[in-house]
Amino acid sequence: MDLFEAIIKRRDTRHFTSEEVPSSVIDICLQAAKNAPSVGLTEPARFLFVNDAATKQKIHEIFEAENQKAADKITDLARKEAYNNLKLQGIMEAPLGMIVCSDYSTIKADTIGVQTMAEALDWSVCCSIQNFWLALTSQGFSMGWVSILDVKKLKETIYIPDHYKPLGYFCIGRPATNYNNMPMLKQQGWTNTR
Amino acid sequence: MDLFEAIIKRRDTRHFTSEEVPSSVIDICLQAAKNAPSVGLTEPARFLFVNDAATKQKIHEIFEAENQKAADKITDLARKEAYNNLKLQGIMEAPLGMIVCSDYSTIKADTIGVQTMAEALDWSVCCSIQNFWLALTSQGFSMGWVSILDVKKLKETIYIPDHYKPLGYFCIGRPATNYNNMPMLKQQGWTNTR
Repeated sequence: MDLFEAIIKRRDTRHFTSEEVPSSVIDICLQAAKNAPSVGLTEPARFLFVNDAATKQKIHEIFEAENQKAADKITDLARKEAYNNLKLQGIMEAPLGMIVCSDYSTIKADTIGVQTMAEALDWSVCCSIQNFWLALTSQGFSMGWVSILDVKKLKETIYIPDHYKPLGYFCIGRPATNYNNMPMLKQQGWTNTR
Repeated sequence: MDLFEAIIKRRDTRHFTSEEVPSSVIDICLQAAKNAPSVGLTEPARFLFVNDAATKQKIHEIFEAENQKAADKITDLARKEAYNNLKLQGIMEAPLGMIVCSDYSTIKADTIGVQTMAEALDWSVCCSIQNFWLALTSQGFSMGWVSILDVKKLKETIYIPDHYKPLGYFCIGRPATNYNNMPMLKQQGWTNTR
């Protein structure tokens, strides 16, 4: 697929069909992710996959608790209702789940580019995530980035190595809609940007 | 250009020709950046461009001070010498400079996805940066991400709004080399990854 077609078609997806994601699709996405820029050539992105419903359920509960807190912060009642009507994740429905982490064991005393701006390690991982997302789009699949999560609870709930920092949970699958070719939050009238 | 061709060809460039970067090239890159995912559809990426040599010189001095500190941390003498021989930026030579920032004024009480993980705002900006980089690559240009910078000094030196957080300085231009189609740090034998 053409680069710009992939960039334009890429969506943050929360509605999925039940179609399984072939491992060959993910292999191509991981290859794209590996070719992202990384500070000091650390290649710090780590991809953990979630297949079983029991684990998804636990992650969904962490989402629900944080999502409730976010809703509680909204004082305008109409806005709060609109917020509660938004579908912000597809954790249970998406056939594949993924946690993407920064591996802090890649930082050594002589690692280039992280001595002053240590966050650059996470930023490298984000470039990998974007490459992964574009590669997924080019193959007819999509994902949604869930950042309404308490990372401490996530690490207490499922095994993630101590030196891995999770940047979010990703719901992966075949999109059930493209939201009329616009971001869902725009389609739903939540925000007027774009 | 094909998505995968752009992903594979994209390099972190530190060696540039003197050829100017047409504004039409940058316009396309900004369009790509705008179509990146953003948490809560905040679209927080802000792009500041640097054209004049005097400003580049000031930024180069900030780089030099931080780079010296990074070199001082390396205790192995051969490794320190190798570090000092690496060209880590093209601030003065690159015809165009850019500072990419996260605009924190985009976060409101009801902004989705940043209430628990506030860093997701910066992570959105990184997705924009990666789209920008791929679009630049597809047009025969390239850039290098300089994260060896003291952001506080940067904000003291040039005007950047208070609510903007810089994620780095980017050297943009026509690449003078593709480092034998591999990351420069690998080509130079600094690291064995990839």
